[in-house]
Amino acid sequence: MTEVVGGRRSGGRAARQAARAISNAVSVPYITRKMSPFEVLSEEHLSLIEENADTVLEQVGIDFRDTPEALTLFRDAGADIDGERVRFPRGLARQLVQASAPAQFTQVARNPENNVEIGGMNTVFAPAYGSPFVYDLDNGRRYGTIEDFRNFVKLTYMTPFLHHSGGTVCEPVDIAVNKRHYDMVYAHMRYSDKAFMGSVTHPSRAEDTVAMARILFGSDFLEENTAIVSLANANSPLVWDSTMLGAAKVYAEANQGVLITPFILAGAMSPATVVGAATQTLAEALAGMAFCQLVRPGAPVILGSFASSMSMQSGAPTFGTPEPALILYVMAALARRLGVPFRSGGALTASKIADAQGAYESANTMQPTMLAGVNFVLHTAGWLEGGLSMGYEKFILDVDQAAAWHAFAKGVDMTPNGQAIDALLTNEPGVHFLGHPHTLANFEDAFWRSSNADNGSFEQWDLEGAKDANQRANAVWKKMLADYEPPPIDDAVDAELLEFIERKKDSFPDSFS
Amino acid sequence: MTEVVGGRRSGGRAARQAARAISNAVSVPYITRKMSPFEVLSEEHLSLIEENADTVLEQVGIDFRDTPEALTLFRDAGADIDGERVRFPRGLARQLVQASAPAQFTQVARNPENNVEIGGMNTVFAPAYGSPFVYDLDNGRRYGTIEDFRNFVKLTYMTPFLHHSGGTVCEPVDIAVNKRHYDMVYAHMRYSDKAFMGSVTHPSRAEDTVAMARILFGSDFLEENTAIVSLANANSPLVWDSTMLGAAKVYAEANQGVLITPFILAGAMSPATVVGAATQTLAEALAGMAFCQLVRPGAPVILGSFASSMSMQSGAPTFGTPEPALILYVMAALARRLGVPFRSGGALTASKIADAQGAYESANTMQPTMLAGVNFVLHTAGWLEGGLSMGYEKFILDVDQAAAWHAFAKGVDMTPNGQAIDALLTNEPGVHFLGHPHTLANFEDAFWRSSNADNGSFEQWDLEGAKDANQRANAVWKKMLADYEPPPIDDAVDAELLEFIERKKDSFPDSFS
Repeated sequence: MTEVVGGRRSGGRAARQAARAISNAVSVPYITRKMSPFEVLSEEHLSLIEENADTVLEQVGIDFRDTPEALTLFRDAGADIDGERVRFPRGLARQLVQASAPAQFTQVARNPENNVEIGGMNTVFAPAYGSPFVYDLDNGRRYGTIEDFRNFVKLTYMTPFLHHSGGTVCEPVDIAVNKRHYDMVYAHMRYSDKAFMGSVTHPSRAEDTVAMARILFGSDFLEENTAIVSLANANSPLVWDSTMLGAAKVYAEANQGVLITPFILAGAMSPATVVGAATQTLAEALAGMAFCQLVRPGAPVILGSFASSMSMQSGAPTFGTPEPALILYVMAALARRLGVPFRSGGALTASKIADAQGAYESANTMQPTMLAGVNFVLHTAGWLEGGLSMGYEKFILDVDQAAAWHAFAKGVDMTPNGQAIDALLTNEPGVHFLGHPHTLANFEDAFWRSSNADNGSFEQWDLEGAKDANQRANAVWKKMLADYEPPPIDDAVDAELLEFIERKKDSFPDSFS
Repeated sequence: MTEVVGGRRSGGRAARQAARAISNAVSVPYITRKMSPFEVLSEEHLSLIEENADTVLEQVGIDFRDTPEALTLFRDAGADIDGERVRFPRGLARQLVQASAPAQFTQVARNPENNVEIGGMNTVFAPAYGSPFVYDLDNGRRYGTIEDFRNFVKLTYMTPFLHHSGGTVCEPVDIAVNKRHYDMVYAHMRYSDKAFMGSVTHPSRAEDTVAMARILFGSDFLEENTAIVSLANANSPLVWDSTMLGAAKVYAEANQGVLITPFILAGAMSPATVVGAATQTLAEALAGMAFCQLVRPGAPVILGSFASSMSMQSGAPTFGTPEPALILYVMAALARRLGVPFRSGGALTASKIADAQGAYESANTMQPTMLAGVNFVLHTAGWLEGGLSMGYEKFILDVDQAAAWHAFAKGVDMTPNGQAIDALLTNEPGVHFLGHPHTLANFEDAFWRSSNADNGSFEQWDLEGAKDANQRANAVWKKMLADYEPPPIDDAVDAELLEFIERKKDSFPDSFS
């Protein structure tokens, strides 16, 4: 391992851990899984859920609120329109999706080495999204700022184990709501060179995002390539509204990707069963994806599922529990059958801190995320408190787990070296393998190595201050930020972006600033 | 939820959490999994590993040290004996196992309601095993005592989410090595009525365990039933020694179960690859199980695998990492092909405390444990520090996770109620499901509920002292121990057990006491 981080010589345990956290020894632009997904239902049962979703779409339908053009598009496509209610003849929504939605697509990054493939056997890790608060050991929980936002973009840029810069890595509440999207999108463009997500809080903000992407990538390039994905949540149950759908329309028209994601607190926003929640998710997602395909056939869409089981006592959302894991496995299988990329999962937890609850719940969500074969993983790192808070230490701990998944996803090495039969046949009973040529040949890469775990003796750990995982992570993110160096950017492009932002911001009344 | 625990009225959050931790609302004597295991290798590749293991058994062989009767048994069975080295003609070890080892067996408990089925689609949870130290938040890390031992037997007895009392739940180092097995076995017999494990530290201690079981169950009953399982570890690589094998022989002769478990620190005790470790594990386990079948055909054996990847930098064992998980999946598949029950996994971690590292690593081991379909899970609760320490709070946290696995293992409910299609068709878009008759009908049992997780608001959590998962668990185990009431036992049997122990202990010189 190198002791030189970011060009500066540095020492100590935190420096070594930071070096491992950003080690690019196994750097890949995204994970390509080598094993088949874990299945919890038979094809027959999955087909039954599809039939039920079709029944919901046919008999109840979906409300498309304040979106007259959606109603027109669906009417022209053969749906039954009743006020704002759209009812789909059996199979129509599925046909609209399957007719043109790509099974897999490339999201380009401004550094082409960071382009990601979304779909198929690929998995793309992005950081957590959407929290108004941030948390760190030194300052506790507080509202997020643009500095926090930039910090998480920088940390994500520095680690090879997150493949995507994400979107609202935290809400920069120190900037007015109607202006902050400029600073957020610019931060992704300037402080990272990985792929990123666009604004969805208003159709005009989606337009701004596309405009900025045209500056960064060039208009012609953007017409031919997907450089933005964005997150559109349904208003479950069975409602799409003008904000999310308006943003989705902007992106689809520009051939940019949309994550069509029902956000379901099962028991409140759907029936209180795994299959009930999955059926509704499928129905809502089919309607949303069909809309995108009507706007622009072939525009990339990702079927998203975000499901939490509600505490039936307190009403609070719970994470890392059995039922959301089962919903995830079911939805992943349904997305495969439909033939579109799938988004779900992440390192989800209801815990306020990265304690044992935080880690159990996160691991219990990342396991099905990976074993189900999720293609786009929002919330891979940092998520706390049901998404209300973005944790600096949690981010580092989750990135370490993301690194481990790179090793797991490679599957079992069945090469002659992996079988190690020569080693087994040349080693005497009772003699350890430490000095065996096979061991020495595999020394460096034999096993995945955590950047955070303390595997040493109790006595050594105690001597070093008996630090827990959070305390170790605290030193790592600080070291990483201290060592951060921005990726190069064309000065003219940067100036044009800044000029665009200044001009747009100046067009708003002062009272909003 | 009841507020009455152990017959005494009690209040407060800890009491409610303790009540949930011991709730028998979903009480089952063991888990019966409803879904097929996750597979990481094809049948062809698994067959190749079996071929390689046969090559190791044929060409290198296994040393059976200081066990002349093993050599005689194997010679008579057709093996090639060279000194203490036993080489197996291809397929012999497998044939000896498959000829008589049961695919599944019942381990009886003194309370027949707690009998467990070991094998097939069943999973039995037992607490952690073998630690010299214990840890709790109040006193930190210290050597275990017989009081700690009894405490963990009591806690295990009280929770329905551990099905088995385990064995050396911690080492009672305050009792002489040659006497402590009496107190340990008696604690399982007296303070619990669940199935338990026997002593393996000397063949005579295995004989003592069998003798005590004959008192508890009756000699005739014990001849016909398996009431003890015990843990026999190989001296990897490729060595069985007289201590473990001697104990295994005692149990097999008495028709009691033996967990034949190579304990592999991959890179040191096996080649540094997943398949190398699995191949060696299979070879060693086949030899050990074949021995048991030669001692008494039909004696229950369990193929065990305990694999840790070695830190190639420090030599320390690591847990919850990708490679041991892959080994677990491979070994589970090999055990299924062989047709014997499988033991592996648990809530393993190298962390000294139940922090985020402890929880991530534990969850990352329990996930493959369950998804691979392990039949007997030693170390389900309490394990810390690579097995050197048994944690009180960790135990409570792990039991909570064990409870969650009961819910997950039920799989997806595809009944009409589970499909919830009537609910979906009778609910208008935009209207929440909280008051829907389907939700109300499923209110109590809709979702699994953690006994430890805090899912509430940050503000409420902060107001209540910002307690982490460990602090919450600390109150729970104390409350449980305070409420403990022993199961009834026949006074005459108890007297006979105590008389046996006193007589045997008196037969040792004083200097050992």
